[in-house]
Amino acid sequence: MLLRDLGEAGLIQRIRTQFQNSGVVLGIGDDTAVLDIPEGHSLLFCSDLLAEDSHFIRGLHPADSVGYKAVAVNVSDIGAMGGVPMHFVISFAAPGDLDLDWVDSFYNGVARACREFKVSLVGGDSSTAKSIFVDVAMVGCVKTGSAVRRSGAKIGDSIYVSGTLGGSTRGLDLLRSGIVDDPAVQRHLYPQPRHVYGARVGRVAHAMIDVSDGLSTDLGHILTESNVSARIYKDKIPAAQDVSVEQALHGGEEYELIVTLLGVIKGAPFTRIGEIIPATGKHQILLVDGDSESVLEPRGWQHF
Amino acid sequence: MLLRDLGEAGLIQRIRTQFQNSGVVLGIGDDTAVLDIPEGHSLLFCSDLLAEDSHFIRGLHPADSVGYKAVAVNVSDIGAMGGVPMHFVISFAAPGDLDLDWVDSFYNGVARACREFKVSLVGGDSSTAKSIFVDVAMVGCVKTGSAVRRSGAKIGDSIYVSGTLGGSTRGLDLLRSGIVDDPAVQRHLYPQPRHVYGARVGRVAHAMIDVSDGLSTDLGHILTESNVSARIYKDKIPAAQDVSVEQALHGGEEYELIVTLLGVIKGAPFTRIGEIIPATGKHQILLVDGDSESVLEPRGWQHF
Repeated sequence: MLLRDLGEAGLIQRIRTQFQNSGVVLGIGDDTAVLDIPEGHSLLFCSDLLAEDSHFIRGLHPADSVGYKAVAVNVSDIGAMGGVPMHFVISFAAPGDLDLDWVDSFYNGVARACREFKVSLVGGDSSTAKSIFVDVAMVGCVKTGSAVRRSGAKIGDSIYVSGTLGGSTRGLDLLRSGIVDDPAVQRHLYPQPRHVYGARVGRVAHAMIDVSDGLSTDLGHILTESNVSARIYKDKIPAAQDVSVEQALHGGEEYELIVTLLGVIKGAPFTRIGEIIPATGKHQILLVDGDSESVLEPRGWQHF
Repeated sequence: MLLRDLGEAGLIQRIRTQFQNSGVVLGIGDDTAVLDIPEGHSLLFCSDLLAEDSHFIRGLHPADSVGYKAVAVNVSDIGAMGGVPMHFVISFAAPGDLDLDWVDSFYNGVARACREFKVSLVGGDSSTAKSIFVDVAMVGCVKTGSAVRRSGAKIGDSIYVSGTLGGSTRGLDLLRSGIVDDPAVQRHLYPQPRHVYGARVGRVAHAMIDVSDGLSTDLGHILTESNVSARIYKDKIPAAQDVSVEQALHGGEEYELIVTLLGVIKGAPFTRIGEIIPATGKHQILLVDGDSESVLEPRGWQHF
């Protein structure tokens, strides 16, 4: 059965039946969702899109991974502000001749993400298009005045990274070569955002960002916004298994957290990789490799 | 100059410079926006996408109209809940070889909508794609407990419609035939949502929806959700100039409001077109034409 045989009304009815929300004043099926934000909290609001052939390839990425990831990347953004993810809307565009199995699998991935991240689908939009587009917009909350910006890094801060880096890039390489049954591939297809840790370290962090485009690019955003530079140590970079330090420094879609703070984060999953130093004209990352030090250029993902 | 020559970072910087927000705790340039919702209010949350060749044609619709409309349709959704639109994020995907003039004109349309509707752009995402895809997600607010649902229509309610219907459809026809300088074309390209009236009549309305897919389809949504039927009068349908009643009954993209309430709305822009009656099995619209009465089937826009 094809998407066009179901029609838009049929699709909405199907989604509405699958996603029975709790804690939502009014969910799918009206002009907008109606939601309550806890008192004393501010709203966090973001969106992330996945476009076919830019973010995923229909013959390579399972549809449920596309649905899961579309939610996970937004959860990661909310977490990187120190907030709690809550509700999201999906805008979904696809060719009318797309098989309904793809659509069902996609929404199964969305439903899995809802269960795992304790977030709820509350609305959205759908349309025909020549290729598949998925855009998720999410709201979350954070205690008013407690959102962790990119702009708060201070000279003398330690720089921490959660988990390991480079695994998602390696997973994509493996997937392209036909290997599916590997933890790196699972990491690429079903990323695990660090929002729970983000909310925890958010209380003491000066600056925070998630690694979506690569450490070299995303740490760079903190430096630019905070008007500082950074020194990081090559032998401290937590590269994933079978991943080079080079891949760990630049690989995107990791959804780990970069945190700067004055003090120490004890225990897993955080590794101290360096410190914030004064900017001398430019905002740059100095990479220490044994006795030598060189400027690390951002080589992460850039669209267009 | 092409979009790919500017790059994603360049695009974000350009948007950030153009959209200086007021009343926003933290806008463009972090993982998420941080926003405050007034005390005693609930959040309204929705999204609407525009896909190239489904919602607009690059050679026919000016880019600034695409940007303007993407914001306006969401303003209309918030208004149809009786709420006040506040902030939005845009996810924008386009081919790398898209001319930057198109992108600039698009964001000029967005900026015009911000000024006219008193809303602010606070973030978003961007990516390459084979065709242009625009998704706007918007938040607004409404006094807690006061959102006007589709499901609240009561037997005996009067049905009102704001403004006139069918003009947008006629505008598209004119545009296709090469005519630009006509009020109907302007209505199609730069729709004027009725959110200010929505917030006003929202206090007394039982049910409300905006006309995005056509009166026959959108009134149908109220009937289904409220478990009622409707009787409307052909000679009361406020057809736009040079538009047949048929076009007025089914034409989409009007962004007028359909309101049901017990009582009278005095004065422009509202016209009483009929009343809510009991559903007898089906939820249907009966169209009275002189002495005869027939069932009006929904013939509005359906995607897929």
